[in-house]
Amino acid sequence: MTQTTLYQQSPAWIRSISPYVPGKPVTELARDIGLPLESIVKLASNENPLGISPKARAAVEKAMNGIERYPDTFDLAAALASHLRVRHEQIVLGNGSNDVLDLAARVFLTTGRSAVMAQHTFVVYLLATVMTGAECIVTPAKNYGHDLAAMRAALRPDTRVVWIANPNNPTGTFLPYDDIKAFLRGVPADVAVVIDEAYNEYLPPDLRVDTVRWIDEFPNLIVTRTFSKVYGLAGLRVGYAVAAPEVADLMNRVRQPFNVNNLAAAAAIAALDDKAFVDQSHELNRRGMRQIEAGLKELGLEWIPSRGNFITFRVADAAGVNQRLLRQGVIVRPLVGYEMPQHLRVTIGLEQENERFLAALKNALNS
Amino acid sequence: MTQTTLYQQSPAWIRSISPYVPGKPVTELARDIGLPLESIVKLASNENPLGISPKARAAVEKAMNGIERYPDTFDLAAALASHLRVRHEQIVLGNGSNDVLDLAARVFLTTGRSAVMAQHTFVVYLLATVMTGAECIVTPAKNYGHDLAAMRAALRPDTRVVWIANPNNPTGTFLPYDDIKAFLRGVPADVAVVIDEAYNEYLPPDLRVDTVRWIDEFPNLIVTRTFSKVYGLAGLRVGYAVAAPEVADLMNRVRQPFNVNNLAAAAAIAALDDKAFVDQSHELNRRGMRQIEAGLKELGLEWIPSRGNFITFRVADAAGVNQRLLRQGVIVRPLVGYEMPQHLRVTIGLEQENERFLAALKNALNS
Repeated sequence: MTQTTLYQQSPAWIRSISPYVPGKPVTELARDIGLPLESIVKLASNENPLGISPKARAAVEKAMNGIERYPDTFDLAAALASHLRVRHEQIVLGNGSNDVLDLAARVFLTTGRSAVMAQHTFVVYLLATVMTGAECIVTPAKNYGHDLAAMRAALRPDTRVVWIANPNNPTGTFLPYDDIKAFLRGVPADVAVVIDEAYNEYLPPDLRVDTVRWIDEFPNLIVTRTFSKVYGLAGLRVGYAVAAPEVADLMNRVRQPFNVNNLAAAAAIAALDDKAFVDQSHELNRRGMRQIEAGLKELGLEWIPSRGNFITFRVADAAGVNQRLLRQGVIVRPLVGYEMPQHLRVTIGLEQENERFLAALKNALNS
Repeated sequence: MTQTTLYQQSPAWIRSISPYVPGKPVTELARDIGLPLESIVKLASNENPLGISPKARAAVEKAMNGIERYPDTFDLAAALASHLRVRHEQIVLGNGSNDVLDLAARVFLTTGRSAVMAQHTFVVYLLATVMTGAECIVTPAKNYGHDLAAMRAALRPDTRVVWIANPNNPTGTFLPYDDIKAFLRGVPADVAVVIDEAYNEYLPPDLRVDTVRWIDEFPNLIVTRTFSKVYGLAGLRVGYAVAAPEVADLMNRVRQPFNVNNLAAAAAIAALDDKAFVDQSHELNRRGMRQIEAGLKELGLEWIPSRGNFITFRVADAAGVNQRLLRQGVIVRPLVGYEMPQHLRVTIGLEQENERFLAALKNALNS
């Protein structure tokens, strides 16, 4: 008789999980192929090529005094509540938005329940769902984006969460807000609809709608955003959710009390306040997007029109092209894990980084 | 017919949770009673009064370049593996040790299972257990510490996790390592035993045993430690678990990929290397402990002998004394939530902070 090991006692859904595969860090590529760090261009993780706001940097330096103390994030929640014109108790802070997505899953999902998400969307929705023991129902994409009618049709009596990314990652597709509102009207009030707006700040102003305002009408709506993209704080980890007070209260019960660190809180408050930096980042992205689209066109490649700070393009031999890009010190994101084996996603970088990427891509296609 | 709300759909065990109550931050006391920040002494959260190692501070400053990038924690895991003489794949990094405790619960507990913990121990074990839907069995304390025989007797066939804190927080009690080893021998191999050693570095060298070495013999053992105490990085959030590779693998599957931030990783690597700072902190704590014990003795108060960087003492009117300490700008920790309504816990501070506390306590007792 073999004794049961501890490993075998872990629930089957935990043992089934494949961990998230992040964009290759520059340090890892340097380790792997021995390239000097400064020769590597990373356009793999939708980070802000301008770095962080000078105001945020100054706030971090100031907050270093007292770093031995446990975080107090009262001021950050208050700043967000004021910025978003909601009540303090509607804010849920996260160690990146990954954390708030996880909290939403944990408070509404468990074994015997299900969540609905679209094909070709952020894999963390799947992971967060599966980790609770719930089932994740994935509906086919429509033109690489969410098919809201298919998602509505997929809802089952045991469905408690719907995941929507807008703009979507990794495809950059965008759902008009009228369609989302109509969708919300059709979803039962006891199903949470999570709209992940990580890339919201990259939308042109005329397309933007403040979904937070809808929470009064739809108390089952949870809006999530992040400081990791336009605000440039990916390495500091701050995201947040806005929800009805009752829903935020549930998420805050499961939240680790010190999930957002001191420096991140200080930086985020300052970053919220630096509109000039956000505008500059937005404009750089707009120009870089045109530059890369023009380059892809010249190379005769197809791409998916994107509303984010990245663009996903098609190459027959994506794995081979990716390898040849890596050897030239250019890191982009392969999308095999997103059922898109013939696509690569590139983040919009600085002008010279975009050039470097396009030149390397040309080489990679020709070799 | 009333429609079910989303809130009502949250599982009963989630709705039953009372969130963790942290030590009152100095900023909060300043907000509450209008005292100037610099006049407040916080001895409530077992933080290091020396702040952080100068080497760690320098590492944080350097790591600010690149803060817009997602964290790469490979080097931190490698540094810990080397420091602890284990394999890289035995390390699980956490956003503070709260995070790794939560991961241990999530991979082994679910509805229909149970965990065992002692009375008067760290409340996060209870929270992490309850959040999974599992039951938490609490065994009575013995002299304010863990009663291992009672814990062994409480194990049920559905028990999958045992929580042990050594030294224990909030009482400071210490379990001899021989007793823990005997306990491990008596626990079935398919029950995880988590030993939380957050205060390990405060033990006198002759009492210390490297429990990480026991993992080969007991692959169901999970040792957790933190950078929040002697290393002074509470505000940056880094903790870790060491476990058998198979167990660490499970925990890493559930772990959020970027749970430890860039600056925390850089600081932790540097802090590990600064033995002089750790020794200095240890020595300061030893002297401060004597100073506070002498003061408590003079005031005729009883205390629980402590192996941590804090000491828990008894006062009949703990709530009143706490209020009178707060009004004097001194923050300690009430232990009502630990079923110790007549005790307060004070962190060992700098010499002048300890003096300030003792003087304020004398006032509080006499008024």
